[in-house]
Amino acid sequence: MYDFSEFSKYAENPIEEEDVVAERLEAHGKKVLKLNRGDPAVYFPTMKYMIDAYVRALREGNTRYSDPMGIKPLREAVASRYRRMYNTEAEADDVVITNGVSEALMFINSVLVNRNDKAVFFRPYYPLYIPDLKINGGNPIIERYSEERNWDIDTDSLERALKKDLKSRKRLKYLVITNPNNPTGTVLEPSALKELIEIAKNHGMVLISDEIYDEITFNGARYTSVSKLAEGIPHIILNGASKDFDATGFRIGFAIIPGKDSVSKEMKRRIAEYAKLRLCVNTPAQYAVAEGINNVAEHNKGIRKLVAEIEKRINFAAKRINESRYMEAVQPRGAYYLFPKLDMRSLRFKDDREFVDRLLKEKSVQITRGSGFGEPGYVRIVGLPPKDILETALNRIEEFCKVHSR
Amino acid sequence: MYDFSEFSKYAENPIEEEDVVAERLEAHGKKVLKLNRGDPAVYFPTMKYMIDAYVRALREGNTRYSDPMGIKPLREAVASRYRRMYNTEAEADDVVITNGVSEALMFINSVLVNRNDKAVFFRPYYPLYIPDLKINGGNPIIERYSEERNWDIDTDSLERALKKDLKSRKRLKYLVITNPNNPTGTVLEPSALKELIEIAKNHGMVLISDEIYDEITFNGARYTSVSKLAEGIPHIILNGASKDFDATGFRIGFAIIPGKDSVSKEMKRRIAEYAKLRLCVNTPAQYAVAEGINNVAEHNKGIRKLVAEIEKRINFAAKRINESRYMEAVQPRGAYYLFPKLDMRSLRFKDDREFVDRLLKEKSVQITRGSGFGEPGYVRIVGLPPKDILETALNRIEEFCKVHSR
Repeated sequence: MYDFSEFSKYAENPIEEEDVVAERLEAHGKKVLKLNRGDPAVYFPTMKYMIDAYVRALREGNTRYSDPMGIKPLREAVASRYRRMYNTEAEADDVVITNGVSEALMFINSVLVNRNDKAVFFRPYYPLYIPDLKINGGNPIIERYSEERNWDIDTDSLERALKKDLKSRKRLKYLVITNPNNPTGTVLEPSALKELIEIAKNHGMVLISDEIYDEITFNGARYTSVSKLAEGIPHIILNGASKDFDATGFRIGFAIIPGKDSVSKEMKRRIAEYAKLRLCVNTPAQYAVAEGINNVAEHNKGIRKLVAEIEKRINFAAKRINESRYMEAVQPRGAYYLFPKLDMRSLRFKDDREFVDRLLKEKSVQITRGSGFGEPGYVRIVGLPPKDILETALNRIEEFCKVHSR
Repeated sequence: MYDFSEFSKYAENPIEEEDVVAERLEAHGKKVLKLNRGDPAVYFPTMKYMIDAYVRALREGNTRYSDPMGIKPLREAVASRYRRMYNTEAEADDVVITNGVSEALMFINSVLVNRNDKAVFFRPYYPLYIPDLKINGGNPIIERYSEERNWDIDTDSLERALKKDLKSRKRLKYLVITNPNNPTGTVLEPSALKELIEIAKNHGMVLISDEIYDEITFNGARYTSVSKLAEGIPHIILNGASKDFDATGFRIGFAIIPGKDSVSKEMKRRIAEYAKLRLCVNTPAQYAVAEGINNVAEHNKGIRKLVAEIEKRINFAAKRINESRYMEAVQPRGAYYLFPKLDMRSLRFKDDREFVDRLLKEKSVQITRGSGFGEPGYVRIVGLPPKDILETALNRIEEFCKVHSR
């Protein structure tokens, strides 16, 4: 018998778990409506000025290894973006360029987590946070956002939970927030962010803020990055080119560690060593993203159009969902997902997993089960496709619910 | 006190450890001759037909997420390359596309290694193998290649070592070979490969063959991939676009797991789950490499010229090194490194680390210490630069040795 790694069994991604079924359907000539992956580049072409910069880098011979931490122009662009937009005290040296935020999360967990260490998340959570912790031997402490308060954070409840479990205190490593939130679309208020910072500080946790959707807010939301508020406590800001810059396939993520405290410095040093183990990130893509950030005028033109379109689609989908008697969703104010609660009592399914699996097989609509986000009885629907596709998909979901209602 | 992960202290890359010193020198106007990183794209432009394919993918809008395992055309291209070149029974489904071989190594270690597990390496080894194991809690068993026999493998000695340590047997996870070898330039004979396969089989180890330099052989070497010989035992073949396709900055690696046995299948399944955790590899680069492989005529034209040039440069450097009274190197037959032994008795340095550090500071020549490869008293010199640069660098090393000789 060959013993595989004990923790490797925790690696899983619920967003893609039905891909094999979808592929089989497509092989049989079905057209699957894929509302599972949040990929803007499928519906909105990446902006031409970024493609041009990418092509230029290739033609100029930038096909060689680059600095493991990322090329200087991109690190500087990322830092200056945070200085410009959020008044953050970030410098190029505080930035690590990664293969998407996913790789940054892997590095962070590898560097911070020993077996049986703990980290704090709120559910519904982005599904990959948990396996990234568990494959390093850590265990999650999972609090719940308050659905009654539009999925806002309930810091009192978190405080109580942490106080109850005082012997874990030494093992508390970090606290993650996703702002704007995937899957709920919540945009956190400065007051909530300040309370979280206080909690992270009091419990000696590193605060990790995943801000990958920070420019994708709408319905009047005003976005606050935690970066300015968190100055003075160890924290990591995560962001990247995938969402704001509509370039998922480039795989360019950023981790910003601006703290001058000893924990921040040591995190940065250890993450740099991990970065060296994989040599570097795709070099020409980094030049494309540097131009993507630095050409503010072009970017702003693009992101405004993109967000206006997303707002329309999301609001259309939210309205349709809330007209259904089988589902109910909080109105999102950021990102591009709908996270409706299913009325499971009126539906003849064992759970949300069965719902999603049968929906795909019967109606060729692929969405993701809420239990993958820590919320059984919910589903996540990507609101990026054009209105006619969203409409078709939501009509099919409605028919599907009707057929399977009690 | 914040406790960082116990194992994260093992992350280190000796090839880049002097980069900060080199940067400082350059900031002071010095021109550093960098013979530390094995990057062909610095000296030989990546072929135009691959750049064209990359640009085409970008212009056609292939900027979105792709399959976590890699795009089908590239997986098929990699499999067909192994079928064509080595008669390997590999199919597209056996191939995982990774962010360079480095990421494949991280996945493999994450999937195979529990705390205190063991893996077998030969020294001098590629420096990143060891941290990739140790950050997962594993411990290396390190045998030595036989320098007397041109750094060939001494399987008898390995057998003896494994027999002596029978209680480790259950913990033996894998055995790695690098063929052609970095840093020694050795190309293994089929007889040695067969013996290694036998040993891996007898001890229940997965055989990992890093073949990233498989098309870069010269001086009459005949290359044999282990892939055909290893059929029937669990094994993983590693390769990628960096060296044979002269595209280091693309970060495209391949792991091929063709076995139909249960260990191979389970490895493949678990590695696929890790691949999903980082969503995908840079999408347009995958199209470029698919074309790179599939356009065999163009590729062959390019690789022949590249290897002919490398052969000249390596042989020139080897000759100069062996004319020195301070160094002696085995003649390489593959890859593009020289790995001379320093005559430490005649030099006034504590160790190879001091040698390398002082050489950089005094002569602006950056090379890598042999102890980073498990061989104190040696250095690794990259033989890729044009003859005049190699000559200047070797002259400076010679002067440096003279000044510091006893």
